Amino acid sequence: MNKSINSKMIIKNTSVLRHNGDIQDADIIIEDDKIAFVGRVVNGNVLADHVKNIKIIDGKGKLAVPGLVNAHTHASMTLLRSFADDKKLMDWLQEDIWPIEAKMGREDIYIGAALAAVEMIRSGTTAFADMYGPCMDEVAKVVDESGLRGVLSRGLIGVVDGDKKLQENIELFKEFHNASEGRVTVMFGPHAIYTCPPEYLIKVANAASELGAEIHIHMNETLDEINGCLKDYGKRPFEVVNETGLFDQGTLAAHCVHLSPEEIEIIKEKKIRVAHNPGSNMKLASGIAPVTKLLDEGVVVALGTDGASSNNNLDMLEEVRLAALLHKVNTLDPLAIPAAEALRLGTEYGAKAIGLNGVGRIEKDYKADIVLYDMKNAEWQPRYNPISLLVYSANSSSVDTVIVNGKVLMEHGELKTLDEEKILFNFNQCFHRLTGYYM
Amino acid sequence: MNKSINSKMIIKNTSVLRHNGDIQDADIIIEDDKIAFVGRVVNGNVLADHVKNIKIIDGKGKLAVPGLVNAHTHASMTLLRSFADDKKLMDWLQEDIWPIEAKMGREDIYIGAALAAVEMIRSGTTAFADMYGPCMDEVAKVVDESGLRGVLSRGLIGVVDGDKKLQENIELFKEFHNASEGRVTVMFGPHAIYTCPPEYLIKVANAASELGAEIHIHMNETLDEINGCLKDYGKRPFEVVNETGLFDQGTLAAHCVHLSPEEIEIIKEKKIRVAHNPGSNMKLASGIAPVTKLLDEGVVVALGTDGASSNNNLDMLEEVRLAALLHKVNTLDPLAIPAAEALRLGTEYGAKAIGLNGVGRIEKDYKADIVLYDMKNAEWQPRYNPISLLVYSANSSSVDTVIVNGKVLMEHGELKTLDEEKILFNFNQCFHRLTGYYM
Repeated sequence: MNKSINSKMIIKNTSVLRHNGDIQDADIIIEDDKIAFVGRVVNGNVLADHVKNIKIIDGKGKLAVPGLVNAHTHASMTLLRSFADDKKLMDWLQEDIWPIEAKMGREDIYIGAALAAVEMIRSGTTAFADMYGPCMDEVAKVVDESGLRGVLSRGLIGVVDGDKKLQENIELFKEFHNASEGRVTVMFGPHAIYTCPPEYLIKVANAASELGAEIHIHMNETLDEINGCLKDYGKRPFEVVNETGLFDQGTLAAHCVHLSPEEIEIIKEKKIRVAHNPGSNMKLASGIAPVTKLLDEGVVVALGTDGASSNNNLDMLEEVRLAALLHKVNTLDPLAIPAAEALRLGTEYGAKAIGLNGVGRIEKDYKADIVLYDMKNAEWQPRYNPISLLVYSANSSSVDTVIVNGKVLMEHGELKTLDEEKILFNFNQCFHRLTGYYM
Repeated sequence: MNKSINSKMIIKNTSVLRHNGDIQDADIIIEDDKIAFVGRVVNGNVLADHVKNIKIIDGKGKLAVPGLVNAHTHASMTLLRSFADDKKLMDWLQEDIWPIEAKMGREDIYIGAALAAVEMIRSGTTAFADMYGPCMDEVAKVVDESGLRGVLSRGLIGVVDGDKKLQENIELFKEFHNASEGRVTVMFGPHAIYTCPPEYLIKVANAASELGAEIHIHMNETLDEINGCLKDYGKRPFEVVNETGLFDQGTLAAHCVHLSPEEIEIIKEKKIRVAHNPGSNMKLASGIAPVTKLLDEGVVVALGTDGASSNNNLDMLEEVRLAALLHKVNTLDPLAIPAAEALRLGTEYGAKAIGLNGVGRIEKDYKADIVLYDMKNAEWQPRYNPISLLVYSANSSSVDTVIVNGKVLMEHGELKTLDEEKILFNFNQCFHRLTGYYM
């Protein structure tokens, strides 16, 4: 016990979800950014060591769960939430989304991500993988200020100004990878095969390889995408991209809705991690990803919300529930993705998928990324099986306290790092400037 | 203006969802149990008439929506929430649900329904169609006390003590139909074709016909049910039941997951209303009902949660969202069941389905069943399209105020008719007695 501890926190007398799916009545001790102990503190002996300034959180009646990981989103698109819905994908992009995105500036990227951070913390998300346009340094600033973890990539639409964008991603990596106590990391963000030709993907792969960076890309989201790829290249997307060397960098592939057996082999061989987005895939009618098959094959499957313009929120507990429900009915198997496994998709597997080590479990030496759910309301009664209650019954309004990297971001419903009122005000000012529309 | 008004209420300066899907900035005046006016009150002139005791509710920043209608549930099954999940249907029934149900007494039926009422009011449900075992008078008592609307039926499993149960349903009808200011109505509840042979259904049809009562029944929930019916009777369930005359009474048919074209013709011919239960059907892996086809054919389709043991909550806004999402991905059509239509399934069509007249719209002369959602939080920003925000982004924690039949059941999150703390306490006492398990 010679190490120097700067801060110490204890969550007392709570119900802890362990990674095997068991619920344990325990105390959790956090030292600096890590979990130091999970179990029963007896006679205060664990607390007696090197203790001066201890924060105590009463965990009674609460369920402690690893923080939710949003493995695929576009945070600043909160600005476009409800701007256009119930349209066909290409009409939606061409008539609504692209024209308004063309007007978005630095301030909009910041404030859109700041509102997203408020929403994510309030709904129990502690880490997110983000891909968006220019000014990703503004998103890095939001990650820094909010206390969240962010895995950021500059969305690279290679067919327009591809080299300039690639340079921005390189600079983003150099400036922000492992910044903010390691809470910010950076990937490269080639958007998709239909916006990035193979020769461009080779450039991206080389740049990423030089820096040791990983890749975040949209793959096989729609049948149109696959048919376009077959028409253009005579092969399916995973086959085309695989030949560029892009997958050799370590890859987070979003969507993966329509996959051939050969493509699943590529995913396994290249250890590609899949970010499944059930809400977005349902709303945009993209299709149902073969998640149970991927899990059976040992692929790391995580969950994401996608952007708030196609979901329409950043509520990861909803995605956990949708994953549990959708794949049961799709496979006609009521045993598919049981509650504890659905929650792992949204926590432990999510952390793996977005490249975070030692994140996603409430275990000694793991990072202290913890959410406390208050179990007092009707939808948590009777409290027979808290995991079932969380996954199938509760909603995110039960999130009471959120801790990331050992720091409290929300306590008893009050945000500690962000000025929510100011963010809401500035957000609506931006929206007014962009659209002429007032709240 | 000669009529005598006993109570008057005005919801000022709110955003009102009209039945055509428009949002109107307006005031709502409620006289006794009905909506008297929707529009802008100018110079207080509308208020000047026959007014003494006016209750004023500030509707600023709120969205006023017709109360949600849960068209199929088993309220007292809240007691079995999370008791057993992620199991096959028959294992679940035989190993878990039936043994514990056999122990449930009068007090359990009451307290299970009371907790359900708390949960329903808090999540914006104002009316529900319930089917359960004995002691349905206890559920009628909960409806009376809570201020909700309830359409109650005695669940009739004909193969065991069928005549006795039918007699109980007859008595229930005689005692409670149109009780509690008309908020309680009664249907007959033959459970399903696999628990009620045709000769029993004929008895039920005759009894219902004599009293002018309608029918609430489970139909075509699983493939097993249909295969069993084909084996036993050589016909599909709707064909067998149709021959008994049961459908001549007016019918609310829950589930209707697997339907042949001939069965859809019977549904149309007999004007059968369908209660679709997307959450339950997904969780139990029953299948996906052909809802878009039924709507195209002019069938009244409503939404239900089913019991809390197979959902696992009574949150109708979730069912509205699931209906909007599930049928988009199932038909691969992003235009299927747009937000306003999804909400109609959960409100106006729901009221029609469970036999309520003049309920389900915020219009003059409709019953004053209104929910106010608070739009202050992040997931409601930007407030471009409130219907999209409600259906695709918000959750039930935004429910602020609930009015049924002109009476306030919840105001600013506080329950006005039920003692929530006492109900939670007694509920957990019952659960302990049934299971030996403590919270």
